[in-house]
Amino acid sequence: MPENTKQDKGRAYHTKCTGAALSTVARQDKDEDITLFGSCFCPFVQRVWIAFEYLGVPYKAYEVDPYKKPQELLEVSPKGLVPGLRFNNYNPPRALNESTVILEYLEDLASGTTRRSLLPPTTNPYARALVKLQSDHVNRNLVPAFYRFLQAQDTEVQITAGKELHQAIETLVGLLERAEREIIGGGGISGDGERQALSKGLGLWIEGGDLGWTDVMVAPWLYRARLVLKHYRGFELPQGDKFTAWLDRLFTHLAVVATCSTDDLYLDSYERYAFNRPNTSQVANAINSGRGLP
Amino acid sequence: MPENTKQDKGRAYHTKCTGAALSTVARQDKDEDITLFGSCFCPFVQRVWIAFEYLGVPYKAYEVDPYKKPQELLEVSPKGLVPGLRFNNYNPPRALNESTVILEYLEDLASGTTRRSLLPPTTNPYARALVKLQSDHVNRNLVPAFYRFLQAQDTEVQITAGKELHQAIETLVGLLERAEREIIGGGGISGDGERQALSKGLGLWIEGGDLGWTDVMVAPWLYRARLVLKHYRGFELPQGDKFTAWLDRLFTHLAVVATCSTDDLYLDSYERYAFNRPNTSQVANAINSGRGLP
Repeated sequence: MPENTKQDKGRAYHTKCTGAALSTVARQDKDEDITLFGSCFCPFVQRVWIAFEYLGVPYKAYEVDPYKKPQELLEVSPKGLVPGLRFNNYNPPRALNESTVILEYLEDLASGTTRRSLLPPTTNPYARALVKLQSDHVNRNLVPAFYRFLQAQDTEVQITAGKELHQAIETLVGLLERAEREIIGGGGISGDGERQALSKGLGLWIEGGDLGWTDVMVAPWLYRARLVLKHYRGFELPQGDKFTAWLDRLFTHLAVVATCSTDDLYLDSYERYAFNRPNTSQVANAINSGRGLP
Repeated sequence: MPENTKQDKGRAYHTKCTGAALSTVARQDKDEDITLFGSCFCPFVQRVWIAFEYLGVPYKAYEVDPYKKPQELLEVSPKGLVPGLRFNNYNPPRALNESTVILEYLEDLASGTTRRSLLPPTTNPYARALVKLQSDHVNRNLVPAFYRFLQAQDTEVQITAGKELHQAIETLVGLLERAEREIIGGGGISGDGERQALSKGLGLWIEGGDLGWTDVMVAPWLYRARLVLKHYRGFELPQGDKFTAWLDRLFTHLAVVATCSTDDLYLDSYERYAFNRPNTSQVANAINSGRGLP
């Protein structure tokens, strides 16, 4: 019998990872130059965490309760938001917050250290720009649409918000198809080397591709859409073969798997959003007041 | 006698640059690989335009009426928003929109062609990240606060919105001061070469500095705040000596001067925002509906 998802059961959010993510936290428990402050269910953390795993940048995983805002978190992230990075070997101390800023930092750092990358090479600015168009859309449209839908209580508002999220995902697919058409299908490619470098900009979207920038930017929300929005809102992701194959590659990629907890953790932790309990989070408050995300 | 700014005089927005910007359009009228689609009063265009001028990337300037949305604009920018770039030598055709994406494109392009840059080198990821923290704040907080203030009609709402814009500017100053402290004041700098490279991340904020990423990102709104918000809302920018000196350097930098029209153009063109006329723009509609900027 399906569980009744219409009633707030008052479940508490989790503060410790479970499943594969728990194993990863345990593996990454030694002191390193960089400490990643994270919270188990937060998608903004997960995108950064996936990047650490993929790029091979050494880090210590450190779980904090984002709603308690411990002082050590406030010292690395002024609003008390995760993710935050603390650099342990600097005086004056160094720290970074904002998931997109941290991702750019890790990309720059890896390019000079581990030599791994989530982007096409700087020698092809256009291929990089097409990727940035995708991630800009994810951050400014898809992510806010996810929260508006999850927090909407009124049925009519839910219907509208669900359509908007669907549209945001379709627009992303359109941008991925455009990149595929212009980069792989387009002229002006001088050989297999350039083709391979450029295909980096398509990530797992194409069969045989490797993890890319947009994959990392969007994966945590698509993962939660398939699980949490389906549970609380009956949401169905687009059904096309190509889209489904992309999701399969994305959700089985080792760097993604390594940062995922078990389903119950997400369902429990997002109940407060799904019933729009007061003061759920700064993100929830921003959506409720029609402001940009913090 | 001061002009009455409380009444909508029904002035029309301008469609052609004036002053120094007009001279620049005239200078940049030859066919090039890249055509910049712009509109004379649009700050999102101006930031891209400043970057073209500073980085020395060849371009043709092309003025369009952003509210008419001509077909050729829709072909380079799906929502019909300026700025847009058209690359004239590709099949299938290539184009880019979104000012922040275009800025990253120009930075990447210039790094391999004109060798000019608005950012610290990739060899110092932390210095770059501090700059990105600043521009992330500009885009997600300062720019929306500018429009909320300009469009607010109710006096109480205007007072609140004015305070929020002030706070957003102060927060930016805080981030600039942090970068100065951590980059120039901090340890771990190996010599004058590194110090010079890093100071690039501070832009014109420091005396003797050169134009930087954050300068370009924020200059168009600070310029309009000093002129348009002062006129229609009595707004005063922060008064500190350091802040004022920064603005002086910013507003007298050749790449900024070259992209500025005369004051009347801005006062006329922003009247529709200041009285929040219906359908002023997609940006205005987004602010009115509590959504993120398009």
